[in-house]
Amino acid sequence: MKAHTEYLWYNTTKKVEFINITNVVDEIIAKSGVKDGLVLVNPMHITAAVYVNDAESGLIHDFKEMLKKLVPEHLPGEDYRHNRTGEDNAYAHLWRTLMGHQVTMAITNGRLDLGPWEQIYYAEFDGQRRKRVIVKVLGI
Amino acid sequence: MKAHTEYLWYNTTKKVEFINITNVVDEIIAKSGVKDGLVLVNPMHITAAVYVNDAESGLIHDFKEMLKKLVPEHLPGEDYRHNRTGEDNAYAHLWRTLMGHQVTMAITNGRLDLGPWEQIYYAEFDGQRRKRVIVKVLGI
Amino acid sequence: MKAHTEYLWYNTTKKVEFINITNVVDEIIAKSGVKDGLVLVNPMHITAAVYVNDAESGLIHDFKEMLKKLVPEHLPGEDYRHNRTGEDNAYAHLWRTLMGHQVTMAITNGRLDLGPWEQIYYAEFDGQRRKRVIVKVLGI
Repeated sequence: MKAHTEYLWYNTTKKVEFINITNVVDEIIAKSGVKDGLVLVNPMHITAAVYVNDAESGLIHDFKEMLKKLVPEHLPGEDYRHNRTGEDNAYAHLWRTLMGHQVTMAITNGRLDLGPWEQIYYAEFDGQRRKRVIVKVLGI
Repeated sequence: MKAHTEYLWYNTTKKVEFINITNVVDEIIAKSGVKDGLVLVNPMHITAAVYVNDAESGLIHDFKEMLKKLVPEHLPGEDYRHNRTGEDNAYAHLWRTLMGHQVTMAITNGRLDLGPWEQIYYAEFDGQRRKRVIVKVLGI
Repeated sequence: MKAHTEYLWYNTTKKVEFINITNVVDEIIAKSGVKDGLVLVNPMHITAAVYVNDAESGLIHDFKEMLKKLVPEHLPGEDYRHNRTGEDNAYAHLWRTLMGHQVTMAITNGRLDLGPWEQIYYAEFDGQRRKRVIVKVLGI
């Protein structure tokens, strides 16, 4: 039984950015030597999300529009309570929650066991600074 | 330490359908021989969700109404950007995200360790075609 | 390889309450003796959520406002279908779904492997009664 841990660092050029990290996760699994098990992919910062969906730019546009409609970047009047702390990113905390912030995926035969269109994305909602994602592999 | 994998296939008669898969998952755990550990239940298609909630038809109705209200099946005017690819299912990608698309459950004494009303559901949002769910058991 | 299970009990004084359980989970990990692995934290009742975000009271206020705006506690007219069963808590089932109801976290060096602001919260949406959370540790 093996456990293996790696940390991915991202520093996006834009505030909101979507990065396909499927291959990076698969390479970590290969390196771990785990043939059968689970991999957790979890953003270690609370204004980003890791989710699984299609690698299609139109859909990524739709995700952003959905998030902005459900949770505007700022509220009229007094804005979000969290922003009274001097922060400007309350929306990013809420967006990452609606997106489901982490995924656990299956490893079979030493690789991600993915359906035909499953891709793992890192969704940055308050970028332009260095942030980490943990990849924890556990299995045999 | 053991790992065990099975794939469930579903081909729903309706576009949107909710299927209680609790017993199916429990049978896979029994077959795996794992007494203590974790089970990941993850839809391998990105327009479906696996979630845990009540086996109550009224609540399932409420879930559908909530999803339709937050993310309409089509947008007035130009519709979702994803649908420009020729697809008609952008809403299903977004719904499955809001539902939380996967669950990891505890195994204790060789069975799902569930609270009194926890039931595992497969929620199909773009059905009428064959789709898979992976069940990965890991433990001792 | 080790597996370890504990059940946390909560009986909140308010209907809606947020409780930081990060330290409790870390103590369970220490007790388990697992140095490297995964921990699942899952509410066993379906009107509560476990999520990871900031320990900041303004943000907790913002979460509640977001949930109330997206899913009102009651619907005008006929209310939620689930409430026809005699229940009054349909909103709580839906809220816990939007929050993402469970988390799996990494264990490294015998402790939760957390980013700088990651905190694990138990979010009770229909409290004032005894409810359980399962903590399942798996690793080496």
